[in-house]
Amino acid sequence: MTVRVAVAGASGYAGGEVLRLLLVHPEAEIGALTGHSNAGQRLGALQPHLLPLAGRVLEETTPEVLAGHDVVFLALPHGQSAAVAEQLGEDVLVIDMGADFRLKDASDWERFYDSPHAGTWPYGLPELPGARAALEGSKRVAVPGCYPTAVSLALFPAYAAALAEPEAVIVAASGTSGAGKALKPHLLGSEVMGSMSPYGVGGGHRHTPEMIQNLGAAAGERISVSFTPTLAPMPRGILATCTAKAKPGVTAESVRAAYEKAFADEPFVHLLPEGQWPATASVYGSNAVAVQVAYDEAAGRIIAISAIDNLTKGTAGGAVQSMNIALGLDETTGLTTIGVAP
Amino acid sequence: MTVRVAVAGASGYAGGEVLRLLLVHPEAEIGALTGHSNAGQRLGALQPHLLPLAGRVLEETTPEVLAGHDVVFLALPHGQSAAVAEQLGEDVLVIDMGADFRLKDASDWERFYDSPHAGTWPYGLPELPGARAALEGSKRVAVPGCYPTAVSLALFPAYAAALAEPEAVIVAASGTSGAGKALKPHLLGSEVMGSMSPYGVGGGHRHTPEMIQNLGAAAGERISVSFTPTLAPMPRGILATCTAKAKPGVTAESVRAAYEKAFADEPFVHLLPEGQWPATASVYGSNAVAVQVAYDEAAGRIIAISAIDNLTKGTAGGAVQSMNIALGLDETTGLTTIGVAP
Amino acid sequence: MTVRVAVAGASGYAGGEVLRLLLVHPEAEIGALTGHSNAGQRLGALQPHLLPLAGRVLEETTPEVLAGHDVVFLALPHGQSAAVAEQLGEDVLVIDMGADFRLKDASDWERFYDSPHAGTWPYGLPELPGARAALEGSKRVAVPGCYPTAVSLALFPAYAAALAEPEAVIVAASGTSGAGKALKPHLLGSEVMGSMSPYGVGGGHRHTPEMIQNLGAAAGERISVSFTPTLAPMPRGILATCTAKAKPGVTAESVRAAYEKAFADEPFVHLLPEGQWPATASVYGSNAVAVQVAYDEAAGRIIAISAIDNLTKGTAGGAVQSMNIALGLDETTGLTTIGVAP
Amino acid sequence: MTVRVAVAGASGYAGGEVLRLLLVHPEAEIGALTGHSNAGQRLGALQPHLLPLAGRVLEETTPEVLAGHDVVFLALPHGQSAAVAEQLGEDVLVIDMGADFRLKDASDWERFYDSPHAGTWPYGLPELPGARAALEGSKRVAVPGCYPTAVSLALFPAYAAALAEPEAVIVAASGTSGAGKALKPHLLGSEVMGSMSPYGVGGGHRHTPEMIQNLGAAAGERISVSFTPTLAPMPRGILATCTAKAKPGVTAESVRAAYEKAFADEPFVHLLPEGQWPATASVYGSNAVAVQVAYDEAAGRIIAISAIDNLTKGTAGGAVQSMNIALGLDETTGLTTIGVAP
Repeated sequence: MTVRVAVAGASGYAGGEVLRLLLVHPEAEIGALTGHSNAGQRLGALQPHLLPLAGRVLEETTPEVLAGHDVVFLALPHGQSAAVAEQLGEDVLVIDMGADFRLKDASDWERFYDSPHAGTWPYGLPELPGARAALEGSKRVAVPGCYPTAVSLALFPAYAAALAEPEAVIVAASGTSGAGKALKPHLLGSEVMGSMSPYGVGGGHRHTPEMIQNLGAAAGERISVSFTPTLAPMPRGILATCTAKAKPGVTAESVRAAYEKAFADEPFVHLLPEGQWPATASVYGSNAVAVQVAYDEAAGRIIAISAIDNLTKGTAGGAVQSMNIALGLDETTGLTTIGVAP
Repeated sequence: MTVRVAVAGASGYAGGEVLRLLLVHPEAEIGALTGHSNAGQRLGALQPHLLPLAGRVLEETTPEVLAGHDVVFLALPHGQSAAVAEQLGEDVLVIDMGADFRLKDASDWERFYDSPHAGTWPYGLPELPGARAALEGSKRVAVPGCYPTAVSLALFPAYAAALAEPEAVIVAASGTSGAGKALKPHLLGSEVMGSMSPYGVGGGHRHTPEMIQNLGAAAGERISVSFTPTLAPMPRGILATCTAKAKPGVTAESVRAAYEKAFADEPFVHLLPEGQWPATASVYGSNAVAVQVAYDEAAGRIIAISAIDNLTKGTAGGAVQSMNIALGLDETTGLTTIGVAP
Repeated sequence: MTVRVAVAGASGYAGGEVLRLLLVHPEAEIGALTGHSNAGQRLGALQPHLLPLAGRVLEETTPEVLAGHDVVFLALPHGQSAAVAEQLGEDVLVIDMGADFRLKDASDWERFYDSPHAGTWPYGLPELPGARAALEGSKRVAVPGCYPTAVSLALFPAYAAALAEPEAVIVAASGTSGAGKALKPHLLGSEVMGSMSPYGVGGGHRHTPEMIQNLGAAAGERISVSFTPTLAPMPRGILATCTAKAKPGVTAESVRAAYEKAFADEPFVHLLPEGQWPATASVYGSNAVAVQVAYDEAAGRIIAISAIDNLTKGTAGGAVQSMNIALGLDETTGLTTIGVAP
Repeated sequence: MTVRVAVAGASGYAGGEVLRLLLVHPEAEIGALTGHSNAGQRLGALQPHLLPLAGRVLEETTPEVLAGHDVVFLALPHGQSAAVAEQLGEDVLVIDMGADFRLKDASDWERFYDSPHAGTWPYGLPELPGARAALEGSKRVAVPGCYPTAVSLALFPAYAAALAEPEAVIVAASGTSGAGKALKPHLLGSEVMGSMSPYGVGGGHRHTPEMIQNLGAAAGERISVSFTPTLAPMPRGILATCTAKAKPGVTAESVRAAYEKAFADEPFVHLLPEGQWPATASVYGSNAVAVQVAYDEAAGRIIAISAIDNLTKGTAGGAVQSMNIALGLDETTGLTTIGVAP
């Protein structure tokens, strides 16, 4: 099977990463690449690491340009995907790496994004209970946010096994590429290097309702989430420290068993041997998720920590994994669990 | 007043930092500098940033060498301070930057440090309730750990004002100098750069009982602490994200008021204007503590975040501040609230 | 003596650094702070590391605002200083941290800056032969560029002692703050971290004629300079590797002797002991210059390497040093040779 | 064809990188993995990024363990390869990633490595004139040093086309992995981050004679090389700035033409479009070499700059490329020109 793929928004970090992965995907043929302010420019000037595509030129993001592809990846600013998707045929697999179709609750969307809700698409986090089946054969996929990917995978086993109280406290550190290529003063190298800083504190981050949605579905009850994201001095990677109070009767063994069961057959999620903790460097550029969990008996809390590459498993790798499932390919096609380290 | 100061352990990061500060302290005269494996070497080869001391040579850490000083700073491995301190006169101000005399509970010490408890000295975190008075005129000071400094200052106002439930969840990121100059593979630049990783997860970090001690004293009740430290790709800095469930009736206003009151007269702790969050870069090399606090109504939690320089306010700056108080000098002598940024 | 100082362009990196230094300068009183697009904003939001000035508000850069100060530092974009300086009285000490008044050759200026030449002011690199005397009592100072500071100090002794042929080859690495706070894609943290890249290759960098001017003056003949700047993943610091073919008869001893003589009485330039090489970390935040020199007999070249902090000695520290000389203060007032490391 | 491959020295950076590449090489089957001090440990604890090999255990480096493989990669300390290679059959392809068999001149070896010369093997830099042919069918390969790879590829076209005078001046910046996993104080993250520093200045670096050998062969005459390596705050990457005085009559066009010709058919060396300069981030984890060249007319010098990943093209990727040629496989098998960026 050869699938012809277009990428809308190929000049940004998510677009660049999906191209990096598609270039080594044995079934993908890279078609149209589009941009907005960068239309007309050579990809070699915008994404110099993608040498095999250096000579390609970005086109405008129009229905005509995107037509004639089997799969279209959308790496567009929030709120723009619905209009583009509508103009693509129902037989085209549309994979949205933005937020537009992730949330089920329209009021959540409106509160956090301040615009009308466009709808809900099958959710591209196949490791969640029931998610893989919903992706099979689907023509629309909403790729999860990077933080919700790291957090949901770290914590859903505790909720699915009814081990944790419905109040999660999560602090995550992200590399700067998670903020995109937007030209903002606090993202300058001079500001970022040597510094850790929080943002969106106190429930304000847009990824919070997505975590609540995922963890609540696993728990079968409403979960309260306290989420604090921080910006770390590294280009890539998310380290998510996720804790919840343990329910009565929980033991270190029951926690371990729940996590072993949850990830037993997962090709990309790796529960580390006891005593070894995840580091983002280990999953640099890979689609792997490194997870470890502990039960702190003195504090009575489960602490689950995951490391992902925010651009790979957290965005473009999750997108390709979902594409594989939707098309009926082997889920791991073109993806790796090998990181680039040191 | 001129005080003659010796530093035992001058080749490490804590020793180097206390020298950096003493060099600009108007009342301090730097006397003996000692080391262990580095005795006999020029300081210029070991601490090349301390140009005015480049020609000084490290001596052995013996009572003879340390004798005849008004103040002795100990920057020694844990467990070695008691033996050295015993040999110094009772009229000498001994300031221990190690852990030996921080904990009040001998069983806590024995569980976390696996050795006999040496005792408890006045605690060098003057901003805590009652701590300043205990330091005045004291001849012995136990400098707090770097994490307990950041965490206690971020969270004690919530406990002192009875705003928070007695279960704190804390995740902190530290620069690598917090781990010292020990030659361990995971501290190599190649391993650290581009990576975030946790350690001491699940209650295992030795700074946990110190936090429990400080927050419990502020609260007047036992506090449970879930503490997860992480290693961040930067040389200096701690960002501590500290959360606790709010007690009934708490409002954003009552939280803000408690923090304003707690820090109103503190020369080094700066409660940021609402909406501005701390970054470790802002306190690089300074003795300042940048704090912000929010009340997340949806999650029902108080989130207090502090940024310090782990080597300055977190170790050597706190030590000099305590020295000033113990000697009856102005508390801010020789210290700055100005960071080196960007 | 108390001098009242204004800073025009206080929101940028050079402006922030001069304020960081003036805050600890015993004779300086900080007056007006101005900005352009940031006028009306609190300095605490723009320069959060300058805690003592957090409440100050930026004003517009107008003659009225700048009037009534003894010293005015200009941290403005190239080409804007002349117009501002003209409106300040001749009795006001004006210190330009931009390029406008550095070059003596009008055609050099016009070729590299593509605008009319504004003139030439006494040059604020007192360590160069004759420069200190020209600064004494002067009411106008042109602060050197950061690269020319590092390069000229590394190489002028070789030329002044007639040890080197008149063709220098220089490669320097700079931290990102050297490029300022301009919002350019290649300065984003995501692009900078983990990457080294050159720019302005082949003689195109605007600092090249300034190096030629300084080295030529020391040599008494025209010097050809091949200069390649590179951007390094760090916020601050310049490491300049400067080489020139040795003249016949040169020996390692004659080279060493020339450098020892050149820096014997300099308070800020430190010729390292033989075998020790400079690192930018050692001069982080300090006004010191660390220099080492070697004679590579096999290649027949002198290799001189200097490390400076581009914002301190390379810009604002050099400016304050020049201010001290111009005002008749001790040259080292308010400045340090102690770096912030690690 | 399936080739069974062993790696001696699998716990270090070079060994880890060759495994990272072999894991995706379609013809390679990974056999024995050996270590010295780490024998008996799980690879998952030593190289956590190599998830598919996490359960493999390191064996001792003995002839018995290495027997029965088609290819053996040696990632051993300098001086140890000869003894191991002797014990392997002549029909086994032995690829040495150390320095032992790189130099042709025994006196060069003895001067720089202070031990007897073991011999010279075909040199694994196929892009050099004549090198590819010597590798075809060979059973022994000496993989070049990382700096000589970057420098030789940047500069040999100028010498092969007789454009440059026989005196090269080279300054290169390397990521810290180039120094290996050795536990040395100056390689600690705290020392490295935020700092640039030189080492081996003045002709002392062991890679200098290798550069002289390569460039001299291209030029057909003895080349003098002034080489200064610097340590940059990044895990991977080399940026080599290489300059040489142009011979009379050289023009920008003749330089460009020589480089276009030299790399026209090379799968891994990419001469960037005019005006675009290499960055190490673009080749992160890839086997590509990004090259640009300029002619500085004012200084009369050719400036050629290359960026490589020191562990990939600079070590393990070059090794696999050479293996492919020696075995008669397509040279690019299992290798990529796509970097991991940002």
